[in-house]
Amino acid sequence: MAPAETKGYRLNHTMIRVKDPEKSLKFYRDILGMDLIDEHDADDFKLFFLAFPDSPSANAQSRAHREGILELTWNKGTEKQSDFSYHNGNDEPQGFGHTCISVPNLQEACDRLEKLGVEFKKRPQDGKMRKIAFAYDPDRYWVEIISTE
Amino acid sequence: MAPAETKGYRLNHTMIRVKDPEKSLKFYRDILGMDLIDEHDADDFKLFFLAFPDSPSANAQSRAHREGILELTWNKGTEKQSDFSYHNGNDEPQGFGHTCISVPNLQEACDRLEKLGVEFKKRPQDGKMRKIAFAYDPDRYWVEIISTE
Repeated sequence: MAPAETKGYRLNHTMIRVKDPEKSLKFYRDILGMDLIDEHDADDFKLFFLAFPDSPSANAQSRAHREGILELTWNKGTEKQSDFSYHNGNDEPQGFGHTCISVPNLQEACDRLEKLGVEFKKRPQDGKMRKIAFAYDPDRYWVEIISTE
Repeated sequence: MAPAETKGYRLNHTMIRVKDPEKSLKFYRDILGMDLIDEHDADDFKLFFLAFPDSPSANAQSRAHREGILELTWNKGTEKQSDFSYHNGNDEPQGFGHTCISVPNLQEACDRLEKLGVEFKKRPQDGKMRKIAFAYDPDRYWVEIISTE
């Protein structure tokens, strides 16, 4: 039983840093279909909040009431540094693993992503586990893809 | 407009590796109030899936249809290694930033967590930003806390 004091708690978002928001928005918004639901532009950095339009909490009364939000932090200027890259948490030193998107049809989704130039660590047909795939986002973070079917 | 092919996509979960599941379950389940909704026990590792009971997708037809799930990966044995720790993505090399939990009353939530021994990087009353806090989970991952009010 959850403590009474935690009533109403929600897992609102996950934040990852991205080198180049143009590439990240192409991936998460234009290809994967997330909505850019909010932005916060500061002098040195800019935050992008993305969520799927079919999210169960899409009609929540505010951004803070939602779940399933991805926050991208862009520290301005990193996109111009050729030797700059973020750490994906799966190469050493390990920590963070991945985000995961569920889709109605895994094979169709992955075939489409592959055609659109998305790189995969593991397609559904690779290896033994046919029910999961791992794509790379533009910063080489892993995005697991599973099926709701 | 989201591509028609991405209809039904959801941001299902975020995975982080944890050193000691006993400590992590105490934090995420017993203190924060998440439900342990699923487990997968393999020879070398064990996965724990947690979600808030008040999640907007709590009544979804399957785990894959939900949002707001936190997956903890425990590689068995790490809890016994005194010199072992995971990388939280905020110390160098940077990448992953944090997860974020929204709560009905930020100050009450943080006061309670502090009383329960949770360490904070930033309490609401620290610094200028009074509307956010950052707690440390047992692996020193940052957990942002914001208010839905």
